Amino acid sequence: MKLMRVGEAGREKPAILDSDGKIRDLSAHVSDIGGDAISPEGLAKIKAIDLQSLPELSPARIGACVAGTGKFICIGLNFSDHAAETGATVPPEPVIFMKATSAIVGPNDNVLIPRGSEKTDWEVELGVVIGKTAKYVSEADALDYVAGYCVSHDVSERAFQTERAGQWTKGKSCDTFGPIGPWLVTKDEIADPQNLGMWLKVNGETMQNGSSKTMVYGVAHVVSYLSQFMSLHPGDVISTGTPPGVGMGMKPPRFLKAGDVVELGIEGLGTQKQTFQADR
Amino acid sequence: MKLMRVGEAGREKPAILDSDGKIRDLSAHVSDIGGDAISPEGLAKIKAIDLQSLPELSPARIGACVAGTGKFICIGLNFSDHAAETGATVPPEPVIFMKATSAIVGPNDNVLIPRGSEKTDWEVELGVVIGKTAKYVSEADALDYVAGYCVSHDVSERAFQTERAGQWTKGKSCDTFGPIGPWLVTKDEIADPQNLGMWLKVNGETMQNGSSKTMVYGVAHVVSYLSQFMSLHPGDVISTGTPPGVGMGMKPPRFLKAGDVVELGIEGLGTQKQTFQADR
Repeated sequence: MKLMRVGEAGREKPAILDSDGKIRDLSAHVSDIGGDAISPEGLAKIKAIDLQSLPELSPARIGACVAGTGKFICIGLNFSDHAAETGATVPPEPVIFMKATSAIVGPNDNVLIPRGSEKTDWEVELGVVIGKTAKYVSEADALDYVAGYCVSHDVSERAFQTERAGQWTKGKSCDTFGPIGPWLVTKDEIADPQNLGMWLKVNGETMQNGSSKTMVYGVAHVVSYLSQFMSLHPGDVISTGTPPGVGMGMKPPRFLKAGDVVELGIEGLGTQKQTFQADR
Repeated sequence: MKLMRVGEAGREKPAILDSDGKIRDLSAHVSDIGGDAISPEGLAKIKAIDLQSLPELSPARIGACVAGTGKFICIGLNFSDHAAETGATVPPEPVIFMKATSAIVGPNDNVLIPRGSEKTDWEVELGVVIGKTAKYVSEADALDYVAGYCVSHDVSERAFQTERAGQWTKGKSCDTFGPIGPWLVTKDEIADPQNLGMWLKVNGETMQNGSSKTMVYGVAHVVSYLSQFMSLHPGDVISTGTPPGVGMGMKPPRFLKAGDVVELGIEGLGTQKQTFQADR
């Protein structure tokens, strides 16, 4: 299933994409896409609905694909070729950092370049949406706690991240730096999360063209690993790292400026398109 | 005012401590301590209530002093003497990191030592609770966005924080690692947040005995600074760093084990008391 949230920011309705590509209103069945609605039981209930019986929604703004995200956790340097382009080596275990949940926006919303930013950069990432509370879970069981996947754009300000006194979160948490969606694609539709093409273009020029198969620590490992440090809750999103091709890795480095248009997508998970603009 | 939340975890009622030390039920007036209730207007409404008219609540469990925290942001190495004891120098601008909001618990709840932990450590900190959305605010205006203050215990696992592949959040976000409260003390009761005694004891022995006056980057600076990187929202909590006396800084280092009792407090903000136990 392709679950989504449609409408004005802060007033999105829960919805589902039907097999004809029509957006159907789920609000008579669930209050939002998140919490209990994305538990295994909640998803089974949605699956049992006759989609033809649901009212059609006009394709207005698409919101972030999940609501009530308590944690937005990112995995750093998780593609060996991306680690190499940043001059880092692959870490001996996953590097984790947090992105503020206040950074989350819809997949096609404008992204704001913060005041004083000169190094705003792009990163297409596979997002993992938790559906059931996970604590101390094994790698073998880890996918049982996953509701599904989404495209995640881990927008990053490299100077804030690495030149402004320690800890990456400072360059990852700016408002609008976390577009997720368009859909939460339930895991039954994704045969192998470790074999998905991932791409990103800036003004039509391909910058990233990779695959989740070169991910160092795969989805099951990451979910299990994180659950050793903290409970994961329904609606939590894990952004699993980016393949090579970010602006910081280019010679010379290349960063985003107002007016740039970034498009990105992951096989089976849909696409995003953002116009970057100055935050005044 | 001393605002608080009382009752079973997840079912706390909003409450207020009256001048006789009685806990009064605020639930007829606000849905919780958070969001609009802690805006300047919300606080003015609570202030106008005749507390004697409110039902008294029995002093059951005290919950975290604020609900709906979207971000739990910490400032690292923010006391020059603490920086020295960890072998670090004072950073040229505030170091920020995130603590998972899922770590938040009540001030007297048991704290769980995570599986595999050998270096669980203590840190008494001044917590700042945001009352109004702050973005690009000046230092001069910053306190207008603060609802009040609380005691914050930034429990830390030092091996997870510094020996397990980059980024401190890993050692700061474990379940129960964020006791806040007992009260959200509104800022009108705190004449100077930069002159508050702060102390922490382990099994009755004083370990930390400092003051917020040795804070490097004060509350107004930190709120303004953070708001340059991301919007702060009502209910967000900023933990502003710890004075010297943490276990990691001792020679030899000393860490918490199951059965240890930690008590901590800040002048005017009340006290916390936690028993540490193994997370099974």
